[in-house]
Amino acid sequence: MVERYEIRLSGAGGQGLVLAGVILSEAAAIFDDFYAVQTQSYGPEARGGASKAEVVIGTEPISYPKATQPDLLLALNQQSYDKYAGDTKKNGLVIIEADSVKPPASTDFRLVAIPIIDLARKKIGREVVVNMISLGIIQELTQIVNYESLEKAVLRRVPKGTEDINTRALKLGREAAKEFKEE
Amino acid sequence: MVERYEIRLSGAGGQGLVLAGVILSEAAAIFDDFYAVQTQSYGPEARGGASKAEVVIGTEPISYPKATQPDLLLALNQQSYDKYAGDTKKNGLVIIEADSVKPPASTDFRLVAIPIIDLARKKIGREVVVNMISLGIIQELTQIVNYESLEKAVLRRVPKGTEDINTRALKLGREAAKEFKEE
Repeated sequence: MVERYEIRLSGAGGQGLVLAGVILSEAAAIFDDFYAVQTQSYGPEARGGASKAEVVIGTEPISYPKATQPDLLLALNQQSYDKYAGDTKKNGLVIIEADSVKPPASTDFRLVAIPIIDLARKKIGREVVVNMISLGIIQELTQIVNYESLEKAVLRRVPKGTEDINTRALKLGREAAKEFKEE
Repeated sequence: MVERYEIRLSGAGGQGLVLAGVILSEAAAIFDDFYAVQTQSYGPEARGGASKAEVVIGTEPISYPKATQPDLLLALNQQSYDKYAGDTKKNGLVIIEADSVKPPASTDFRLVAIPIIDLARKKIGREVVVNMISLGIIQELTQIVNYESLEKAVLRRVPKGTEDINTRALKLGREAAKEFKEE
């Protein structure tokens, strides 16, 4: 674990990225033993339908709460990728929604493309779990939090009656990322 | 509306303050025409059961996202009051849960004590809406966002099937604050 790890989750409003950011930071700080700060910045782009949530995880109290050079970017649509990919740390990780973002020819960062929306539709039957699949992917690829901590944090936050669908989606994301790693 | 308005919501985990912070910032930025940043900081105190959410609302993009000298503090328990009241801006506003926080003899800020938990139990029958009652109180006392914007933001975020109970709680908070103003 490095001293400070910056994560930016980006996509469209309604994709549940704020909830994903809250869950990820609570997994890190309540169930694992880190400090975490979770931030949403809203401006005119929010009124235009964009959504962005940031999480900074650290081993010490976090002085500056914004992600300025993310170690990890999740981009669920092209607009988000175009806006944020350039900020990514060199040798950082960018996870793109495979059917929504056109991958560039070459990058300074590691690029992983997973058909998150298609997985949500076909394997869970609900597009609304795109955020949970994304969290499972992030956990598997970064190991920034423990899987068990993440699952506890999910159960703490999702509405009653949706526990099963959400934890299944989390697991699906982990499995999808594992397959990717093995490729 | 001032250029920058800082809000800190504090209490115990499970009181829904993170959701309240998200709703308040979305009311300001998506339904009203402001910029907003919403932040959660988690450390050992989160593992101990404390919860804090911050919202900064402004007429311009917000450079520093944390509330350092809040214009408004909501303190739902004694621990939160003791920890944060001293940070409040001179002539700022502190809203305390009347049955959970012992009011001090004198303060540099305006103090409003409302029995939020008792209202939730007796008027709604569910303590879980303490956060929505609090939002209604904040709206009425500060007018920082429009009531209609706040209601839209609530409906955008609460789980399906809970719209009625949550909007009733919001309205109850507004009415309780109105009575307080008239005293």
